[in-house]
Amino acid sequence: MTKCIAAFFIVCSLAKPAPPLTARQVIERIQAHVGVPWRADTVDTFKAGDPDTPVTGIATTMMATYDVLVRAAAEGKNLIITHEPTFYSHQDQTAAFEKEHDSVWEQKERFIKEHNLVVWRFHDHWHMHRPDGILTGVVRALQWQKFQGTNDPRLFVVPEMTLEQVAAQMKQRLGIEIVRVVGDPQLKVTKVGLSPGAGGSQSHRAMLQKDSVEVLAIGEVPEWETIEYVADAAAQGKHKALILLGHIPSEQPGMVDCAEWLKGFVTEVPVGFVATKEPFWLAR
Amino acid sequence: MTKCIAAFFIVCSLAKPAPPLTARQVIERIQAHVGVPWRADTVDTFKAGDPDTPVTGIATTMMATYDVLVRAAAEGKNLIITHEPTFYSHQDQTAAFEKEHDSVWEQKERFIKEHNLVVWRFHDHWHMHRPDGILTGVVRALQWQKFQGTNDPRLFVVPEMTLEQVAAQMKQRLGIEIVRVVGDPQLKVTKVGLSPGAGGSQSHRAMLQKDSVEVLAIGEVPEWETIEYVADAAAQGKHKALILLGHIPSEQPGMVDCAEWLKGFVTEVPVGFVATKEPFWLAR
Repeated sequence: MTKCIAAFFIVCSLAKPAPPLTARQVIERIQAHVGVPWRADTVDTFKAGDPDTPVTGIATTMMATYDVLVRAAAEGKNLIITHEPTFYSHQDQTAAFEKEHDSVWEQKERFIKEHNLVVWRFHDHWHMHRPDGILTGVVRALQWQKFQGTNDPRLFVVPEMTLEQVAAQMKQRLGIEIVRVVGDPQLKVTKVGLSPGAGGSQSHRAMLQKDSVEVLAIGEVPEWETIEYVADAAAQGKHKALILLGHIPSEQPGMVDCAEWLKGFVTEVPVGFVATKEPFWLAR
Repeated sequence: MTKCIAAFFIVCSLAKPAPPLTARQVIERIQAHVGVPWRADTVDTFKAGDPDTPVTGIATTMMATYDVLVRAAAEGKNLIITHEPTFYSHQDQTAAFEKEHDSVWEQKERFIKEHNLVVWRFHDHWHMHRPDGILTGVVRALQWQKFQGTNDPRLFVVPEMTLEQVAAQMKQRLGIEIVRVVGDPQLKVTKVGLSPGAGGSQSHRAMLQKDSVEVLAIGEVPEWETIEYVADAAAQGKHKALILLGHIPSEQPGMVDCAEWLKGFVTEVPVGFVATKEPFWLAR
């Protein structure tokens, strides 16, 4: 009888599950591992769902589109770590959508609730990580590590190609459907600047002013800013060009790397990358 | 002798040239004819050159790129009336460029000075003109006048087409190289909303929320705003799509019309449209 009771207690103790890992705890681990002080003013916050939800799996992604949420949920991953916004603005403000009873927003919110999802944004601090988590992923995907500058990791000296060739190489290696280019297709270039995402025209211009940048590759920018600037430079006969990769594909490989990085300190649940689709197709 | 003197005075009087028309006077005529009160807060101001320069000819254009300035000057047109910015930002602020001794800006400024050009922006009030001068030109180019709404001139009911077909028609009629589309290519649509330029996501969303808009055609917008919104709507199975015409070609026909409108009250000098080139080409 004593033996039986002892055995019963041992079995109970073994079977008792570890306390579930919550979304909040995952984020606390990220904050502890990212290697830079956490900013008070940041967009890296919870965007939807209850932070105390037990996590069944983690999906990293470039942009938490509805399509991404559906595929993550189907894989049993209920914590979505997204680089870009979920609710259609940099600040993910939803007050206007609520007031308007916007049906696209409502269906997305409903899907998140019904599938017990939690969405958290990882933008500022993944860029602030040293090396920049996004840039590192993009350089890996481009196979340009050996061409990367040591002083400025955004600058590359590649084997000489025409602008047409370098744009084609980036398109192929990053797997992009639509890459738009400004400049002379036959311009011979070796010096490439890389500014994934939407870094803004001031930052773009600072790179384009350098002799060490003949062609700048970015995600996106308004037409009347960097695009007009480079069109003018090209019309003036300057040795400058611009490659527009599109925002999503220009940064996406950095969120593949993010999943690998997370696996280093989150081992209780599956962690994987869910690709965000390039949103466009070309009219004929 | 008396006859001779009289004849001399008559000849002198006939030969005396009319006082030259200045850029400032042309703009005063525009302000008098545009049919809406002139706003105190507007981007419709002189951007470069001396407003008191005598005008030799007027070029209307979509965006006063370096290439446009060169072609206008070659045609002897020294007053450039541009819908979009000259100096790479909505406010055309040049202080940063001066400070940085930016070579692209310097060469553009130098060209303007050396060729005695004056650049003036005509954005807000050409849109405020009734009917909207830009929209009217685009509708004419699309040959969609008979499909235009009477209550809201931005709404159209066109003969039923697939999304692929309506995008192809807009591309062909507006003469655009690169038109990007979000949504199901086989979606059958009749209800099209037209918002040329960069109207902003709040305005786009207000149109997309209407049952009277199945597909919205715009110039451009950041990917994480209207583009993600429509990608989500499409993923949710909603009958919605987005066509991105590019900023320049989406509004350019409105500046063709602007030249015709100006000819109604500026007769002293040649007036003509100078096309702004679509800045992009596609990587293979």
